[in-house]
Amino acid sequence: MAISPLDSTLYSGLFGDSETASHLSDEAELKAMVEVEIGLARVQARHGLIATEAAKVVENTLSGIELDPKDFLLATTSAGVPVPGLVAKLREISGGSAADSLHFGATSQDIADTGLMLRLKRIIGLFEHRLNSLVGDISALAREHRATPMAARTRGQMATPVSFGLRAATWVRDLARELRALRKLAENGLFLQLGGASGDLAAMSKDRDLLRKIEADLAGDLGLRSSAPWMTGRAPLLDIATRFAAITNTTGKIGADVLIGTRSEIGEFDLAESGGSSTMPQKKNPVKAEVLVALARLNASHLGALAATGIHAEERDGASWMGEWLTLPQVAAATGASLLRAQELISGLRPEAARMKAAIDASNGLMLAEAASFALMEHMPRSEAQALVKKAANSVRSSGKHLLDEIRSLTDAKVDWDALRKSVESADAAADMTDRLLEEVAELIA
Amino acid sequence: MAISPLDSTLYSGLFGDSETASHLSDEAELKAMVEVEIGLARVQARHGLIATEAAKVVENTLSGIELDPKDFLLATTSAGVPVPGLVAKLREISGGSAADSLHFGATSQDIADTGLMLRLKRIIGLFEHRLNSLVGDISALAREHRATPMAARTRGQMATPVSFGLRAATWVRDLARELRALRKLAENGLFLQLGGASGDLAAMSKDRDLLRKIEADLAGDLGLRSSAPWMTGRAPLLDIATRFAAITNTTGKIGADVLIGTRSEIGEFDLAESGGSSTMPQKKNPVKAEVLVALARLNASHLGALAATGIHAEERDGASWMGEWLTLPQVAAATGASLLRAQELISGLRPEAARMKAAIDASNGLMLAEAASFALMEHMPRSEAQALVKKAANSVRSSGKHLLDEIRSLTDAKVDWDALRKSVESADAAADMTDRLLEEVAELIA
Amino acid sequence: MAISPLDSTLYSGLFGDSETASHLSDEAELKAMVEVEIGLARVQARHGLIATEAAKVVENTLSGIELDPKDFLLATTSAGVPVPGLVAKLREISGGSAADSLHFGATSQDIADTGLMLRLKRIIGLFEHRLNSLVGDISALAREHRATPMAARTRGQMATPVSFGLRAATWVRDLARELRALRKLAENGLFLQLGGASGDLAAMSKDRDLLRKIEADLAGDLGLRSSAPWMTGRAPLLDIATRFAAITNTTGKIGADVLIGTRSEIGEFDLAESGGSSTMPQKKNPVKAEVLVALARLNASHLGALAATGIHAEERDGASWMGEWLTLPQVAAATGASLLRAQELISGLRPEAARMKAAIDASNGLMLAEAASFALMEHMPRSEAQALVKKAANSVRSSGKHLLDEIRSLTDAKVDWDALRKSVESADAAADMTDRLLEEVAELIA
Amino acid sequence: MAISPLDSTLYSGLFGDSETASHLSDEAELKAMVEVEIGLARVQARHGLIATEAAKVVENTLSGIELDPKDFLLATTSAGVPVPGLVAKLREISGGSAADSLHFGATSQDIADTGLMLRLKRIIGLFEHRLNSLVGDISALAREHRATPMAARTRGQMATPVSFGLRAATWVRDLARELRALRKLAENGLFLQLGGASGDLAAMSKDRDLLRKIEADLAGDLGLRSSAPWMTGRAPLLDIATRFAAITNTTGKIGADVLIGTRSEIGEFDLAESGGSSTMPQKKNPVKAEVLVALARLNASHLGALAATGIHAEERDGASWMGEWLTLPQVAAATGASLLRAQELISGLRPEAARMKAAIDASNGLMLAEAASFALMEHMPRSEAQALVKKAANSVRSSGKHLLDEIRSLTDAKVDWDALRKSVESADAAADMTDRLLEEVAELIA
Repeated sequence: MAISPLDSTLYSGLFGDSETASHLSDEAELKAMVEVEIGLARVQARHGLIATEAAKVVENTLSGIELDPKDFLLATTSAGVPVPGLVAKLREISGGSAADSLHFGATSQDIADTGLMLRLKRIIGLFEHRLNSLVGDISALAREHRATPMAARTRGQMATPVSFGLRAATWVRDLARELRALRKLAENGLFLQLGGASGDLAAMSKDRDLLRKIEADLAGDLGLRSSAPWMTGRAPLLDIATRFAAITNTTGKIGADVLIGTRSEIGEFDLAESGGSSTMPQKKNPVKAEVLVALARLNASHLGALAATGIHAEERDGASWMGEWLTLPQVAAATGASLLRAQELISGLRPEAARMKAAIDASNGLMLAEAASFALMEHMPRSEAQALVKKAANSVRSSGKHLLDEIRSLTDAKVDWDALRKSVESADAAADMTDRLLEEVAELIA
Repeated sequence: MAISPLDSTLYSGLFGDSETASHLSDEAELKAMVEVEIGLARVQARHGLIATEAAKVVENTLSGIELDPKDFLLATTSAGVPVPGLVAKLREISGGSAADSLHFGATSQDIADTGLMLRLKRIIGLFEHRLNSLVGDISALAREHRATPMAARTRGQMATPVSFGLRAATWVRDLARELRALRKLAENGLFLQLGGASGDLAAMSKDRDLLRKIEADLAGDLGLRSSAPWMTGRAPLLDIATRFAAITNTTGKIGADVLIGTRSEIGEFDLAESGGSSTMPQKKNPVKAEVLVALARLNASHLGALAATGIHAEERDGASWMGEWLTLPQVAAATGASLLRAQELISGLRPEAARMKAAIDASNGLMLAEAASFALMEHMPRSEAQALVKKAANSVRSSGKHLLDEIRSLTDAKVDWDALRKSVESADAAADMTDRLLEEVAELIA
Repeated sequence: MAISPLDSTLYSGLFGDSETASHLSDEAELKAMVEVEIGLARVQARHGLIATEAAKVVENTLSGIELDPKDFLLATTSAGVPVPGLVAKLREISGGSAADSLHFGATSQDIADTGLMLRLKRIIGLFEHRLNSLVGDISALAREHRATPMAARTRGQMATPVSFGLRAATWVRDLARELRALRKLAENGLFLQLGGASGDLAAMSKDRDLLRKIEADLAGDLGLRSSAPWMTGRAPLLDIATRFAAITNTTGKIGADVLIGTRSEIGEFDLAESGGSSTMPQKKNPVKAEVLVALARLNASHLGALAATGIHAEERDGASWMGEWLTLPQVAAATGASLLRAQELISGLRPEAARMKAAIDASNGLMLAEAASFALMEHMPRSEAQALVKKAANSVRSSGKHLLDEIRSLTDAKVDWDALRKSVESADAAADMTDRLLEEVAELIA
Repeated sequence: MAISPLDSTLYSGLFGDSETASHLSDEAELKAMVEVEIGLARVQARHGLIATEAAKVVENTLSGIELDPKDFLLATTSAGVPVPGLVAKLREISGGSAADSLHFGATSQDIADTGLMLRLKRIIGLFEHRLNSLVGDISALAREHRATPMAARTRGQMATPVSFGLRAATWVRDLARELRALRKLAENGLFLQLGGASGDLAAMSKDRDLLRKIEADLAGDLGLRSSAPWMTGRAPLLDIATRFAAITNTTGKIGADVLIGTRSEIGEFDLAESGGSSTMPQKKNPVKAEVLVALARLNASHLGALAATGIHAEERDGASWMGEWLTLPQVAAATGASLLRAQELISGLRPEAARMKAAIDASNGLMLAEAASFALMEHMPRSEAQALVKKAANSVRSSGKHLLDEIRSLTDAKVDWDALRKSVESADAAADMTDRLLEEVAELIA
């Protein structure tokens, strides 16, 4: 079944990510909830709220059990959340007094939200790993091409010569920022939820110090951050989704750049893999680049949808809560798939230095206009220099000669034109800036 | 696997709709594409473009075949669309000269878009059926309660007494509008896509009249509307999604109304089914009403996302096209699930007339303020009447007496207060308006 | 002041549309509400609900009055809607018994929603006018270039040769569909709102036939469609916004196509106007094309936001209603600005036929691959033909020879290669399809 | 003019915030850009890139000048950004060699983006101030009502008794989190943009160390964070918008809670200000609460729209950049207005303790069901305790007796029922949790 292509078999090579999906399946959801119940019992026993023996039985009978989602379908339909059915089943399994000690003083949302955070923690760990690899590979690409001349394009127009390395360095800097941000998030942004029925833990204990200890210990055991209940304060989820969307904006930008660079007329990038057409043998469709753009846009939209679920009325807002379930997992899955596709795309990306150079040459030096203006400004006022360059630029269009030659014919200012041309076209400034960005990357991921 | 709860087993009683899903599965997608290929061959044979014998072989070998999505995974990954791999497989199956006649002059998008339209046609048919039933049931509810007094609430405040029937009649009128709109859509809004590689059908034939005939016949055979290619003009998909979102806005409104009406303090609606809590035995959670609100919001967001995919560059825009796949099926599935849940909710909805009446009574006639003003205006200027009613209303708050009694103590205007009170509280105007709306419903679905 | 660039002076040449804005100003909003109040009084007098004399005074004193929004600020803040303050002011102006007859039995939402519909009617009329002109100009462009060869690009890759006329014809067909849709909307989709306090018109009259007449007459007088109240059934607004978004998707597509076609490397379009850079004299930024894309995306997002306001709880849902005010006018304004910018862009669009031809030539016939396959299929099985063309295509990449020459060296099949080449490159099929689309345009706008 | 109600005069008491607007006006935009140009010249002079004298002239002639947006309309229309026109005008004003030294080596985006960051810094400072005040006021409210009993509502149903203080404490904790986050953002998240034409600062200097110093000094002088160019890496803007949306989600939650609490049937909150109706004198519309919900939803949608602009192709992506202008200022303005309205709402919020108590009493102890179960579990197995409570709860519905009395009639377990009842109803646990949340607030804002 596949209403979302993220869940499809047919489209799994485009939009799929089985590893991320394994944390978002019905099975994984139930498993994480069981972990939370076991953890809660263990900590409650440690602090004398339930019997140590009961907690041991809970742990022994429930650890690693396999549950079939179908068995919880009816109870989930009835309660609107799988927890009551799950708890009933777990009580049945652990039996006796252990059954009574399970889920002690907790509410469904405690288990569901904390279980979600556990799964997000694993997903974020996975993304860190992937980002790390991607940052490494793109850094190498940027380093290799730090001085490979390529025309910068601003607003779709050729601007000045830079280097392909500079382009790649902006990709990797933005990914490195997100890698660092994910690490911070994993440390500080994944919260335990423990509030009981209405957020005051009234049924668990009257001893507020004890409650603080249970909260702190459970958070510590689960690797989450301790927190007072956030049942209606959902900014932590929004923050996670924002990071995911920021990642896919950068993979989406890589995709967008590759879509342009692989155009037939441009050909500055070649791809190891590209899609054939059902009828045109010459076509090389940049399929994965399209996927990256499409997934980035999907994430942006889902970020807005998730944000809209952040208005939770009263002590628990069912419709808003459900809205999170309908969007956040898709954001995570789209991010995971984007990281996989970006890695595949980068692995097969072949920068075509000769085509990049040819594009610069084809401009007859028009892209050196800014550099020429600045060189002339050491010999005349800015306005005069710009007027002169503009005049020369207009001549280029009709004459087909090189801009610097046209300028030379208009002025005898003592500019070392050959050095200028060489320096600009050898992309010195871009190479410097590439280094700068790579230094920033190194600091970010240190 | 279940990244989207719409695809989940565990949540299928909340967000699932297996019948709609059956049109959105990988298998259904492949099946519909096969239908289009068979239909194309048949029509092309009819007009002599391919051999009749070949078309027969195509039909005999391919009709009703079962295909396994896994077999097309790799080819879909490579091409970015399942069609090339599917066509290769179909050629292998039909063999010989039939293979050459398959997919003659068509392109992947022709098959994919037309296949999508076929599936949408079935989905729309299904929704018409469900809407029809829902319109019937809510109409009956509205008719039954046309004069069951209930307080209208505007901006969350009790306004004037109307009837529960009027509320239900607004639900059903809006659903009936959408039923009618779906019927029109099914007739006029589902288009054949046939453009060939670049939209001019150049490879199919040079005979433009023949091409028109093939297009018209194929559309006719498939039950779609004939059209010049719309490869980059995606408004037809936006129009379909808008209708789906309009449906879920109404089911969402029903859900929102039920969420309020089932609140503990209000209790004007009771539900046959409602969800228990994992820890509070007295809770009756209006789960399905929450689902309706959550799905309506999801559809609204996806409508925006789908609209954003409507900017298709050049002759075929891969990233935008993929964006449709990532959103439109979810809109359809959420609409289907909403119709099922709405039907279940309505079937179990118990209007509590006594509670509705009690709420009106508890207002001590304050809700009759508007009616009293208008009655007094037959005896004094409007401003005087309103001032008098306002003064009386203020007294009600401290005295706890009925508004009409307070007014009577302030004026001897010859208003028949008992008749007024009876007429307003018996919801005559609301009953009339209920009839009016039901008449509109009858016209809409005629 | 300018929080939205749509309201800005500085950016008015990019995002502004003073004519549409004139219908969306505070002043226009108040004016339209006054028109509704006058119309209501006139119709109520016609049917004896209020005195004819009073209605005349209302009309005489209120027609065309100028109101200062500042005077209604405080009352709007207090009531959350400008109507109560406006009605108070209008009563003050008309005075005496006319004051009492104003706003008789109506509620704020009747006046606000109907006033909005009046303004939307004018805006739609304006858009029809602009679309008509745009359809004419692009039709002429398509006709002129019906056979001007241009490479089709699918998924960013050169596909087959078509014509620029075909591209333009898809633009105009989609605009013509929307022009027709706007006309239908103006006829059938703009509704009177008349429900009174809670939707049953209880305070206006007890005579249901009279109420129907008032409703029908008022709708007729205002040029709107008669309808039972739709206070909570907001699909009519969603339908209008969908049409606006469909328009901007097409102007956005024009913008996206121009952004690519004006790229330095492509240059198939030149623009009469384009933006300079603050530092690069050679730049020609396709500013208006960017604007069209940006506005289309804005509209898509606002369409989703508007759809999300469509869930109206109970009899009047203040927060959802406000959500419409915050989005719908921006959708209208962005659409108006898009139509202006599209007209300006089209007026200055210079298709560069020589560059288009050169791009086709530069492909060494690779774009004829599909046509060659089909030609060969008359002499050999499809698979053989395709294998042969694929082999030849691979040779082209290394040899730099023309594809048809490579094929000729591999087979002696009796294909008239020169005729094929000529027919494909002369864009016969594309010219035919252009005609086809222009015929559809003619029918749509007839 | 007012296409967006955020820009309207008429609606300024609802959606307006003149102080935030003053940073988002055309005038403020130009002014901030002038500041950046002056700052750049000053720093460049400090490092010998331009003459000290020239920088002084720049500063003397340009500091604090008033510019009329109308004068830059045409140039903005042409260039698609106001900077070229602005720089031309500034050069005209400063004259002579100072003119040549202005904007030296910079590009339009440097000035526009840095100017935006300057204005966002001021806006964030303003929001910190407002949040601080709001946090103080709500903290006081929470402290005052830490033990004022109120029924918790989960999924719209009465759950267990908590306190109004606990509700208010969740509001203030979420606001305090955002206050802290804003402070961090102001320190670390507002970046200088300095990249020159294509992001490598090639025209400014060839000396990379000098460039680093200029960047660092300019950032320092402007109070921004130093950074390599982020022309296409727009996550910093997304992060700001996310914080703004998180703020409005909390003010929106306050609004949603007030909308429910002020319902006629509930009346647990009264408002100092509320809106009258044009026809119903008894109505007290919670207008500002509606505004808070509507603005939160608007921000969520605009967050998604802004995120979608984060895919910037190549070195500068005009359409995506414009998309930021069309959304981010609205997010800021909606946030500012929300903070004002929230402050006004909180100032006028009157918790009605008697109504809160009455709602608890009306439940006949059903809300004590969870507490009773846990008390019984000290005397019998959980399942037995729950069955007993469930049986008692069912009796309550028919008998109208108190739950604890019903339980007592079913068991002689030695529970101190009076103590239990008193402890639960006196909201001890909720008071403890309120303290806990307020401690967290104190830490967050320390």
